Formats: sequence, structure tokens, C-alpha cells
Amino acid sequence: MTNYSVIGDWGTTRLRLFRIENGVIAARRDGPGIGAVGREAEGAFAETIAPWLADGMPQSITLCGMVGARDGWMEAPYADCSADVQDWREVAVRFEWRGVPFAIMAGLACEDADGIPDVMRGEETQIFGALARDPALAAGRHLIVLPGTHNKWSLVEDGRIVAFRTMPTGELFALLRDRSTLGPKTDVTDAAEEAAGFAEGLERANEAGLLQSLFAARTMRLRKGKSPDWALGYLSGLLIGCEIAEIRTTLTGTDSVVLIGDKRLSARYAQALEAQGIASHAMDGDGCALAGLGFMGEVTA
Amino acid sequence: MTNYSVIGDWGTTRLRLFRIENGVIAARRDGPGIGAVGREAEGAFAETIAPWLADGMPQSITLCGMVGARDGWMEAPYADCSADVQDWREVAVRFEWRGVPFAIMAGLACEDADGIPDVMRGEETQIFGALARDPALAAGRHLIVLPGTHNKWSLVEDGRIVAFRTMPTGELFALLRDRSTLGPKTDVTDAAEEAAGFAEGLERANEAGLLQSLFAARTMRLRKGKSPDWALGYLSGLLIGCEIAEIRTTLTGTDSVVLIGDKRLSARYAQALEAQGIASHAMDGDGCALAGLGFMGEVTA
Repeated sequence: MTNYSVIGDWGTTRLRLFRIENGVIAARRDGPGIGAVGREAEGAFAETIAPWLADGMPQSITLCGMVGARDGWMEAPYADCSADVQDWREVAVRFEWRGVPFAIMAGLACEDADGIPDVMRGEETQIFGALARDPALAAGRHLIVLPGTHNKWSLVEDGRIVAFRTMPTGELFALLRDRSTLGPKTDVTDAAEEAAGFAEGLERANEAGLLQSLFAARTMRLRKGKSPDWALGYLSGLLIGCEIAEIRTTLTGTDSVVLIGDKRLSARYAQALEAQGIASHAMDGDGCALAGLGFMGEVTA
Repeated sequence: MTNYSVIGDWGTTRLRLFRIENGVIAARRDGPGIGAVGREAEGAFAETIAPWLADGMPQSITLCGMVGARDGWMEAPYADCSADVQDWREVAVRFEWRGVPFAIMAGLACEDADGIPDVMRGEETQIFGALARDPALAAGRHLIVLPGTHNKWSLVEDGRIVAFRTMPTGELFALLRDRSTLGPKTDVTDAAEEAAGFAEGLERANEAGLLQSLFAARTMRLRKGKSPDWALGYLSGLLIGCEIAEIRTTLTGTDSVVLIGDKRLSARYAQALEAQGIASHAMDGDGCALAGLGFMGEVTA
């Protein structure tokens, strides 16, 4: 029998568990997303972790993500911004499961000057993890971006998350690509064409608004001989460029911009930020998530 | 046997024919959209008009709309902006059909300062019709708006269409309502709630960008108890408000703003323009379309 603890991220589409033993990741297990199991969450969790329990119970289990949503396993509150890592940890839901201390971490909520609310659940763990991993982020004003379906742009000041804004740019891109009369509804086959379209979309976003630039994804094919790959790249560049142009007007004056998440998408955002004169650096999403859950060791793929 | 002529609008979703006799609309007939019949266009047209041909052939037939597209019955060119009504009429496709002079009106094309092309096919007929019906539009600088799925914002100077821009706002709204995680996917049941959401969406559009304001359609339900009807109105007001904010930066300094089309949607746009301090007046879509095809008589529903 060994001493170990379990940490993990249970999001809408996937459960990821990490077994931490002697300060290293000893094993991983994946399970179904919380969106797929709903009220059967406990059973699905027990099934996923069963092989580890066979040689003894863990000392603790800590999960973050949509597992704490209203439709998840057990509702965890939102910590209100501004919040530092202690404020956030304090409001986690804690209970015993089969005799093991179990924590489901809280989400984060904020409200802008106009009273418009915003929420996140899971991304806050990565942000607090980034602050733990990079001492340079602990002081000063930093913009931390988690690109994805619903991008979270978070402003961190002296170690506190003071405000954030969700931009559903990824979802909008998927709708335009797959469901609209503007997107070519194909997968990219010519990466160079797509990259050229992306660059032109970024350029356009610097000069004109989003709504008046969307239709060009269609007319540039009809009138200028551009390819479907070009159009996909153009739509992506236009959306990301407009997103950055918008956020620049509200979350301003930061010392650095940090991208957390998928490498390819982060590289796209880095290029788009650069096109508007903003330097950024990327951090690994898994590393930040696990650091947010208290594991500061090495994370390998 | 009577003397008559036929004019009509054959768009993607509907064929509408008007029988003009002694200066009045003597009859109407509807047929399938050009999008549904494709290469069988001539047969579908012959079938729709057959009852009228039974008592004699018309003196002429004139159609506008997508019937002249590449995938329509017979391709008509695009007149290049700037264009007045004569420039546009000259490039119509003219042929004989069963011995009757037949014209398919041209579309309209333009290019902005950045070389981004735009096109319309059908709407130009309504714009030239508006100029024919309202002498006040023949001189000066006017912004003419045709709201719909793909809104056309056209700048008219001294009777010439000098530039236009397509904004696919209606399509985007439908995608967000029916296909996204933001829209409530319901029909409106409480009109007052919807109207309140619309007004708040307009207000938001005056203060912040589109991408950073979309997510509120979800969080205002989650955190502020807003209803699905409110959220639908909010999304509509936000999109239309952002559309107007964008177009104000490019098509500027006009003497008047004219709305052509569906009464309810025109009223929405009038409210949104008013919220940004822009007065407008509405014109009937059918009246403008028929005037563009040369019929200046009364149009009743």
C-alpha cells in the first residue's frame, strides 16, 4: 500500500485524473465528461478511479471544473472578484467520500462597471496555477488569456484576479464555418492558403469592424478567386483580430500578456496579438491546471 | 385578348409575378424560389405564368433577383458602382422567350478602398425604385438600408449608388438563436420582456464591442434572473446596435437614412438608429421593387 493523492479536472467533455505519488505523476486515468453523465456523476467517478482504489484509498481528492456546476456532481459556489488564491480555496466544497477528504474547487464570478456579470469554472484553476508557476506574475498587472470555445480574458493585479471577460469567439467561428452561408464548410487542405487568409483577416480586423468584414469570406471567393482554405483562414483571423481589438479598449495597461492552453491556438493568438503590437508568452495548460490544484512538479505529455 | 406586361422578383426562396394592365396590378402569381429549381428554371417559370399566357402573350417580361445569378436561369452581369439607373438598365440580359421580349436585370458590384468586393442581386432594384418614388432622394447624399438576412447598406449620391456594404447580421442572429450555447432556442412568448432585452442590447452596443457583450445573453439569465425572451431581445438589439455603430464609421455624412423592407424589422432598425441619434424613414419594399421594374402605380397588399 502506497501513499498517494488524486487531483483532476472534470470538464463538460472529459474527466482527467492524476495520481500523485512521492511528488510525481504516477498515473493518469480519463473518464466521461460531466456533461455526458449528469446525475450519474458519482458512479462514473467511482468507475474511473476504481483501479487505483484497489490498492488503497488516496489521502485526498481534489477536482476542478464543471463538476462543481449546478448540473454537475455537487454545486460549488463562485468566488467573487477580486479574488486571490486563498479567497478562492476557502469557498471550495469539501466533504468526505468513502472516508477520503474530497474537495470540489469553486468557480469565479465578476461584474463589470455596467453590472454585466461573467463566470468561469475551471479556467480560474489554470490562472492561479500560472501565478504559482511564474513568480514574475505575482506582482504587477497582467492579462492572462485562455483561448478556446469561450475565451477567458483575465486581468490579474498583484496576484489577484480583478476582472475577466468571456468572449465566445471559438464558438462563433465554428458556427460560421459549419452552419453559415459564409464559411466554406470544408476542412483545411492547403495550410499555406489558410495562413495567408488568416494574415489578411488580422489585417482587416485592424482596419474595419467585424460585421462589415464577414461577408468578404464569400465575395473574395466569388469575385477575387480566393479558395475555401483562404476563406477559413480569413474568418479565423478576422474574428481573433476583432476580439483583441475589443479587449484592448477595456483591459488596458498590462505589464505582460500570457496565453494558456492548446499550443496551436495559443500560437495563433500570439500572432494576432503581435499584429496589434502586443508581445505575449505561452504557458502549458496542463502544467497550470495541476499547479492550481497544488501540484508543482513536472508535467509530461 | 388584353394588352399586359409582366414584372417580377425571382429570389432564392420565392418567385413573385405581377401582371400589369392599364397601369394597375391586375393579378399576382407566386412560384418556387430559384434556389429550389436551379436548372429547371425555365420550366418552373412557364408553369407559374401559364394561366396568364392562356388568354394571350404579354408585351414584355422583366425579372430581377437571383434569377440572374450564375446558378440561376440566365446569368446577368453586375453593374459596377458607381451606377445610376441607366447604367444598371443597360447591362440587363435581354432575349426573346416564346416571342416575348424578356429582360433579366443586372446585379450590382462594388469594391472598397481596401479592394474588398461586395455584390447584391435584387436589392438594387428596390434602391433604384426608391429613388424613382421619392424625388427628395434624387439629389444629395442618402444612406439606404435594406435589412434582412444579409443587410445591404447603400450610399446614394445625386441619384447614383456609389458604394454599399453587406452585413450578414440577420444570419448571425439566427445562428446565435438556434445553434449556439448563448441563445435560448425558443420563440418569443413575452413581447414586453423581449422589447426590454432589445433596448438593453442597443444600450450595450453603444458602450462596448460585440464579441465581449455576447456572453451576457447567457450570464444575465444565470446570474441576474433574466428570461429567455429577454435574452433573445438582447442578442437582437446588441447585433443591430453594433451593426449601426460600425456603419456609422464608414458611410458618413448623409442627408437622410431610408429603410426599405419588412415593416417590423424596419421599425426595429429605426429604433436602433434613433438610439444612436440618427433619424430615418421607412419605404415599402414591394412598392420600391416594382418601381425599380418600371411600375409607378399603387401597390396594395
